[in-house]
Amino acid sequence: MSKLRVESFTISLDGFGAGQNQDVDNPLGVRGTALHAWALSTPTFQKNLFGRDGGHAGIDEDFAARGFRNIGAWILGRNMFGPVRGPWPDESWRGWWGDDPVYHGPVFVLTHHARAPLVMQGGTTFHFVTEGIDAALAQAREAAAGKDVRLGGGVDVVRQYLRRRLIDEMHIAIAPVLLGAGERLFEGIDLPALGYTCTRHECSPLALHVVLARQGSKD
Amino acid sequence: MSKLRVESFTISLDGFGAGQNQDVDNPLGVRGTALHAWALSTPTFQKNLFGRDGGHAGIDEDFAARGFRNIGAWILGRNMFGPVRGPWPDESWRGWWGDDPVYHGPVFVLTHHARAPLVMQGGTTFHFVTEGIDAALAQAREAAAGKDVRLGGGVDVVRQYLRRRLIDEMHIAIAPVLLGAGERLFEGIDLPALGYTCTRHECSPLALHVVLARQGSKD
Repeated sequence: MSKLRVESFTISLDGFGAGQNQDVDNPLGVRGTALHAWALSTPTFQKNLFGRDGGHAGIDEDFAARGFRNIGAWILGRNMFGPVRGPWPDESWRGWWGDDPVYHGPVFVLTHHARAPLVMQGGTTFHFVTEGIDAALAQAREAAAGKDVRLGGGVDVVRQYLRRRLIDEMHIAIAPVLLGAGERLFEGIDLPALGYTCTRHECSPLALHVVLARQGSKD
Repeated sequence: MSKLRVESFTISLDGFGAGQNQDVDNPLGVRGTALHAWALSTPTFQKNLFGRDGGHAGIDEDFAARGFRNIGAWILGRNMFGPVRGPWPDESWRGWWGDDPVYHGPVFVLTHHARAPLVMQGGTTFHFVTEGIDAALAQAREAAAGKDVRLGGGVDVVRQYLRRRLIDEMHIAIAPVLLGAGERLFEGIDLPALGYTCTRHECSPLALHVVLARQGSKD
């Protein structure tokens, strides 16, 4: 059955899921690039983010690539989609990713402010969902047509789905970086009580990769 | 110059430094053994904890062994010394480690309740310090006579020394284990603001080892 998966989600050694002070020049927040060094080293991210060859094979690439396999739809929090807050002033913001975004499929963006769907090149359509996380998941599952749904983040959205036990599997990369402040992914969340166990862990020179799966999740 | 070092300090993926419900049967707290699997795999811990040969060479052993090099004295929180709380009912509790403890030198135990020094076999003497963390560090430094002081824990004591910027170097092992609850080592602590950076990281199959050092610390 279709799973809800978090993939390639990176946290710092001190547990933060994003750098602070995200803005148009720092889509990953300050020090976000250091956090994501493992991902930037992979052919998958080089290709998807920058449209270029590069990167190298290995554990990091294995995890990056698995994150794009069998994905039929995406869910993103609004801050993942862009730096605009509050009501949309106009339709000019079209995401961080240029005319041909990395998603190549339906993307459901959680927001409190309605907006018409945005059809991009390469098969990506952004749908703006104002009815909350359950509605977004239902719409994404339907759009995924049997494939899995990937939850892209950010931290707050992942935490909301975690608390509701709706995430089947999470690949988390712990980067050897200290951020000091920001949003802690696991703050106040009792993962074993929610049914999660660590089912896999592997190390690369740039990250400790772990997979957390919920017991009782569909296979 | 003499450093204050934390060594072989293990935290879970979700950031907890000890299992819950420590008692005489669970000196490391519930699931503490899973947390410390990397250490238990090493010749250093097999020898020091159980007096036996065993374990194997590798990254885990490298980190375990470095933790005992150039150490002239130790500081422990009272809960590291034992499960007894409040005033000492008598002198019968003599630590978790039998007649010949792993320390083989002076150990300064932080407590609110005075007690006479306890001389053990193998060179270990437990001194009970009631004047707080600065006094314990001063006494330990003097006893170390130029060697380093190792801060054994637990979590609360490490956090107190961290906040005071008194720790020069920390080796932390992140184990692929979820605890869900307990004491978070880095909760509310802004490590970069306190001057710490990650200066080394290495992975073994059982842990992600990182070294955090304070800039401006003596070399």
